[in-house]
Amino acid sequence: MRNSIGNIFRLTGFGESHGVAIGGVIDGMPAGVKIDLGRVQEELNRRRPGQSAIVTARNEHDNVKILSGLFEGITTGTPIGFVIENTNQHSGDYSNIKDAFRPSHADYTYTAKYGVRDYRGGGRSSARETAVRVVAGAFARQALEQYGVEIYAYTSQVGNIALDKDYRKYDKDGIENNTVRCPDAVKAQEMIRLIEEVKAAGDTVGGVITCVIKGVPVGIGEPVFDKLHARLGAAMLGINAVKGFEYGLGFDFAEKRGSEVADAFCCENGKITTLTNNSGGIQGGISNGEDIYFRVAFKPVATLLRDVDTIDTEGNDIVLRAKGRHDPCVLPRAVPIVEAMAAIVILDNILINKTVKL
Amino acid sequence: MRNSIGNIFRLTGFGESHGVAIGGVIDGMPAGVKIDLGRVQEELNRRRPGQSAIVTARNEHDNVKILSGLFEGITTGTPIGFVIENTNQHSGDYSNIKDAFRPSHADYTYTAKYGVRDYRGGGRSSARETAVRVVAGAFARQALEQYGVEIYAYTSQVGNIALDKDYRKYDKDGIENNTVRCPDAVKAQEMIRLIEEVKAAGDTVGGVITCVIKGVPVGIGEPVFDKLHARLGAAMLGINAVKGFEYGLGFDFAEKRGSEVADAFCCENGKITTLTNNSGGIQGGISNGEDIYFRVAFKPVATLLRDVDTIDTEGNDIVLRAKGRHDPCVLPRAVPIVEAMAAIVILDNILINKTVKL
Amino acid sequence: MRNSIGNIFRLTGFGESHGVAIGGVIDGMPAGVKIDLGRVQEELNRRRPGQSAIVTARNEHDNVKILSGLFEGITTGTPIGFVIENTNQHSGDYSNIKDAFRPSHADYTYTAKYGVRDYRGGGRSSARETAVRVVAGAFARQALEQYGVEIYAYTSQVGNIALDKDYRKYDKDGIENNTVRCPDAVKAQEMIRLIEEVKAAGDTVGGVITCVIKGVPVGIGEPVFDKLHARLGAAMLGINAVKGFEYGLGFDFAEKRGSEVADAFCCENGKITTLTNNSGGIQGGISNGEDIYFRVAFKPVATLLRDVDTIDTEGNDIVLRAKGRHDPCVLPRAVPIVEAMAAIVILDNILINKTVKL
Amino acid sequence: MRNSIGNIFRLTGFGESHGVAIGGVIDGMPAGVKIDLGRVQEELNRRRPGQSAIVTARNEHDNVKILSGLFEGITTGTPIGFVIENTNQHSGDYSNIKDAFRPSHADYTYTAKYGVRDYRGGGRSSARETAVRVVAGAFARQALEQYGVEIYAYTSQVGNIALDKDYRKYDKDGIENNTVRCPDAVKAQEMIRLIEEVKAAGDTVGGVITCVIKGVPVGIGEPVFDKLHARLGAAMLGINAVKGFEYGLGFDFAEKRGSEVADAFCCENGKITTLTNNSGGIQGGISNGEDIYFRVAFKPVATLLRDVDTIDTEGNDIVLRAKGRHDPCVLPRAVPIVEAMAAIVILDNILINKTVKL
Repeated sequence: MRNSIGNIFRLTGFGESHGVAIGGVIDGMPAGVKIDLGRVQEELNRRRPGQSAIVTARNEHDNVKILSGLFEGITTGTPIGFVIENTNQHSGDYSNIKDAFRPSHADYTYTAKYGVRDYRGGGRSSARETAVRVVAGAFARQALEQYGVEIYAYTSQVGNIALDKDYRKYDKDGIENNTVRCPDAVKAQEMIRLIEEVKAAGDTVGGVITCVIKGVPVGIGEPVFDKLHARLGAAMLGINAVKGFEYGLGFDFAEKRGSEVADAFCCENGKITTLTNNSGGIQGGISNGEDIYFRVAFKPVATLLRDVDTIDTEGNDIVLRAKGRHDPCVLPRAVPIVEAMAAIVILDNILINKTVKL
Repeated sequence: MRNSIGNIFRLTGFGESHGVAIGGVIDGMPAGVKIDLGRVQEELNRRRPGQSAIVTARNEHDNVKILSGLFEGITTGTPIGFVIENTNQHSGDYSNIKDAFRPSHADYTYTAKYGVRDYRGGGRSSARETAVRVVAGAFARQALEQYGVEIYAYTSQVGNIALDKDYRKYDKDGIENNTVRCPDAVKAQEMIRLIEEVKAAGDTVGGVITCVIKGVPVGIGEPVFDKLHARLGAAMLGINAVKGFEYGLGFDFAEKRGSEVADAFCCENGKITTLTNNSGGIQGGISNGEDIYFRVAFKPVATLLRDVDTIDTEGNDIVLRAKGRHDPCVLPRAVPIVEAMAAIVILDNILINKTVKL
Repeated sequence: MRNSIGNIFRLTGFGESHGVAIGGVIDGMPAGVKIDLGRVQEELNRRRPGQSAIVTARNEHDNVKILSGLFEGITTGTPIGFVIENTNQHSGDYSNIKDAFRPSHADYTYTAKYGVRDYRGGGRSSARETAVRVVAGAFARQALEQYGVEIYAYTSQVGNIALDKDYRKYDKDGIENNTVRCPDAVKAQEMIRLIEEVKAAGDTVGGVITCVIKGVPVGIGEPVFDKLHARLGAAMLGINAVKGFEYGLGFDFAEKRGSEVADAFCCENGKITTLTNNSGGIQGGISNGEDIYFRVAFKPVATLLRDVDTIDTEGNDIVLRAKGRHDPCVLPRAVPIVEAMAAIVILDNILINKTVKL
Repeated sequence: MRNSIGNIFRLTGFGESHGVAIGGVIDGMPAGVKIDLGRVQEELNRRRPGQSAIVTARNEHDNVKILSGLFEGITTGTPIGFVIENTNQHSGDYSNIKDAFRPSHADYTYTAKYGVRDYRGGGRSSARETAVRVVAGAFARQALEQYGVEIYAYTSQVGNIALDKDYRKYDKDGIENNTVRCPDAVKAQEMIRLIEEVKAAGDTVGGVITCVIKGVPVGIGEPVFDKLHARLGAAMLGINAVKGFEYGLGFDFAEKRGSEVADAFCCENGKITTLTNNSGGIQGGISNGEDIYFRVAFKPVATLLRDVDTIDTEGNDIVLRAKGRHDPCVLPRAVPIVEAMAAIVILDNILINKTVKL
């Protein structure tokens, strides 16, 4: 529990925003997989701060250093230890929050729970720890490619600007063409403009990320309590700022009749597929071979770059103005995190599924 | 993994719809708790089939038999073994689906995964197994009362009939006043009427359940991967037919600005609270002492009592007409299941939280 | 933790000696295995009380009832729930220990830990719960046969009567020829005579069981913390009355030189074997294809059928004379338990090993 | 499983002998514990190579670097990440074993299991990874001191030189007075002389370590499968070269009568103790407040500094002469490892025990 995720393919993470380093251990990485470390670093670069004008200015290169588990570029089946040093901390920026509880932040709950907290940059509650997930996800992804699994995510809503079509209508190759990671070039510009406006106002804005997983073999996922979508949901809800998860038609199912949304089977050349995919590629908690797709809702970042009324740790009213460098909108940087968590869950479940028969 | 949930307070379930019995083992039930078995049975009765005109007619009394872990009415800290016999099976009703894959059901995925399936009544994929969860939830709930935790859920949407107000506006005492378990008496009648219509048409309909948890102490929940809402989300997504989960403002956060939704702190008589509770009682994955509330989306039941085009296990096109007894809408019976899963998660996390300090 | 063992093939047990029933859930039983329930019952019969003159007279038939997970005699991959009713309890025999702490028993520690205990027949601390292990072991064994794994154990020491030769010198077919389960017919008679003497004196005696596992494929076992022998050791040490575990040469290694005990490799027809097997079939925590063998030390049963000085729960000195029916020596009945635990561990590790490569 | 140990207090380790670094993550370290890092380093120094004439000459300082989880010297409840760099590798020493399987080593089993191995210095199977355990143990120990728990171990046998008395007869303060860590000064010199002889002959020798744990509160340990001694046994058996574990009278119980070894209770001033402690401080898997003591058997190190007949990875006969630097006897350096593993298990179980009651 706590700082580990996965059963067979299991990531254990550590690290505070302004500590010496963040890092983790990947246990259960299958042996014999050739790893391209350049691609691991590329995934980190997609998440890193300072990558564009619409994300935090904390300019950290987030170079990952692999300490174990690889020999001559091949995984050995032993745990992958890795670290990412914290190099661009401005811990002084946080001295004014030392004794304050920022609204909608974890300052208060961490203090109440542990009796002590590393207030610098949010400590362990900072989204900085998600870099560790991206590393693990990048390893998982390279293993998944051998199964033909492909995972991509994109920003489908920022504030009131939302894509109105189904994921099938968008070209995934367009996602990385803009800084907000939206496959619709026009909407992308509107989203970027909105984020700039919000940023200029010292405010922040929420949004939705859509994720698609193609090529998952039939039969992946472990009922009853560990249904594939329950694992995916938990992984997504564990990402900072996430407030909702739905897969397939999700909440839209609520107003549907069974006759409208049943995914009829068909069989062509011995291959069973469904004519529609309202289910989102999972039935009874087990993949059915169709695309898995889901949506993840993010709240606006809690840190505002303006005066905020709050209380100090003694309960006195104070006015707080955040310093530090913050994202006006987490969505652009959260896209690779969503993909990473999806990769971790899918690989873990593919490995577990190997144990279902003798 | 698989058929267990929880870390310290852990339920392991077993049983198929038409097997000898369903049941489970509750490990980690704290010692010294006086258990009212009558109340355990009452929770089961709220979930049981045949309870009203708008649920399945399978008339099973679902009497739970406790086999261990209680001595003179008190929990002993040893595991609670329990069984619920399957008494009202009409397995013959299922002979026609033996070789068929019903659309949007788990027939195909189970067969693909395990190579064999107990087709009678859906076997393990049947929602019958949720009775086991209700038993565990009823034990958890009685432990939670000692902490002052209160949990209730209600049907907030059926098809296009939705409650339009916040949970604070509804009187929880009204929930059990109608068969659909909706606290708004007028909307409840509309929902019931809709379900009757849908049933008459051999169709089914989806909906949303809202759940509220009051009195959770500050500090419950384990970051990073096991945030309290991630645990709750996984528990809900593990319930049959659930397709979405959101807490606090959930997906509505997507279009909000940070300045609109920050939950300002205030401190009265040394007690820290928040003026609003958009966060849904959890910040950074840890409870902050405010109400926890969340919404769970259910798809319409997949089994339609009408002719359905599908395929058989050989891939041939067939027309299937389900026999058996089925719910036109799972919401009324799912209310106690949602509550049970919430109780399991909260008690487990309260127990884990005891280990955070020496 | 606690009442579960195994990671993929996982048994969760429940039940007190004098409760309604004992039982368990086997999760992770591979799908598609044909199960001979008669053989499951036979294993239970080898463990059951009342089977001979040298074991407890509690005459219980220990009929196991399978509740789920089997369909038409084949495992379905869903959990196997099962119960064994408690039918021959003489709970009245225990009224005099209600307020007493028996020496070297768990009465005191259970009371101190949980604040409450079911004193009847030792409650949860009774070796009665080991019947549950035998059921799970019998399922595991039938799966293991498909891998060619064979497991047998025998009594190699009772009191000061010990077999002085290596397991290779004894014919396993002789084990079941006598009630003490010793393959040396002469020593067996001496052991039986010793147990009868001890029993007549109202006393008890300890011993050692040797277990041999043949046919485990190379590569089974998970370093670092879960070395195969660490898992086997934990499984054996979890059996009631066990006080020691050693594998290969075990404690005899302490006085050896490396040059004396190295297991030289040889290779015949492409098959790698070792000329000696001091290692006990495991190197670096991983099976090497040779026989796995280990020894398990049992203390004498704590319950004496004579007057014993002890204290009551208030700390007052009392004299206690146990009633009830007890084993003068647990070894004969522990042989199938040791085998069962070995089977559980080996199957679990064979399944885990499937996840080591893509 | 695999590279993690503990449930609540959980260590996950990584690292190969000749990789960049070894290290680990301690999750579940209680918050608010003041840590003396100097004492953590001291424990490592007791384990480090090159510390005396009777251990390996690999001269590595094993400086631990803490990366997270401490703030101003206090644990924050977040995971402790740490690394120890590998600085004194002579990987060239191992080029001749690249294609060889050393007898009684893990070379063959790792290769068979994973298909690939980092042969340098034994890779992951090297005892180098135990440094990571010592770090976690040092943290656990500082937490345990707040409960008054004290742990010490010592070498009680090397080859045929064995202490013949009970642990109570030896002064623990004498343990660190000699390089073999034996509290009997005379026997210590004999042991050292033996190790020197063995070393001079290019040979190695086995032995036994005795460990004593004082001050464990009554009630620690989780029956059924996770009995305290089963956890301790598994932890010890997971240490490299360990082949046996016994606690209390251990294997000596085999020849005892129940009447000889029952630990009679007595009660003085309301405190319940036992007159003897044959049980080794644990009854029914739960601590009873008496001293816990156990013995751990080590085989002689497999690497001999002389010509050895073996095979290469193709199965051809070869003669191998190990280069590298190796311990002629692991006992002196294993003493702090045994203590560390004991500390990890005891703290984990003390934390788990907090969850047994509301």
